[in-house]
Amino acid sequence: MKRDQIYLEKFGENVLKRRNELQLSYRQLAQKCDLDFSAISKIEKGQKSLEFQTIIELAKGLEIHPKDLFNFSFPIQELKK
Amino acid sequence: MKRDQIYLEKFGENVLKRRNELQLSYRQLAQKCDLDFSAISKIEKGQKSLEFQTIIELAKGLEIHPKDLFNFSFPIQELKK
Repeated sequence: MKRDQIYLEKFGENVLKRRNELQLSYRQLAQKCDLDFSAISKIEKGQKSLEFQTIIELAKGLEIHPKDLFNFSFPIQELKK
Repeated sequence: MKRDQIYLEKFGENVLKRRNELQLSYRQLAQKCDLDFSAISKIEKGQKSLEFQTIIELAKGLEIHPKDLFNFSFPIQELKK
């Protein structure tokens, strides 16, 4: 489980990066996607897990495809048995 | 919210498609990714929301990048304000 924390952190970094690209504050993004602004802060730091629906809401607010928030290295080969 | 149900369904279809590609039963996939097999059945039908961690677990079991499970149409242009 601990190893997987890295993916949550990478996801959060992608949220932060995109929010900065759009020059949105926490509050502005929160308003756009109907989330609490403190939740967005925690998500960006990888400190909060998300539901599927929250991922969709964030993607809408950030005007990107949700799969772009999963833009991180994922070692598929290692996982094969 | 209702409109967003479609994304959960598309996600589920991608899980089903990939599980079939790997010729895995529900139980086999469940064992591979430490999930309950009835949960996988519901996810494939878009009847169950998922946590971020579950998405990662599914991707591991399905030996694909999690972003490939988000391979569906997402109308970004429409969402811009």
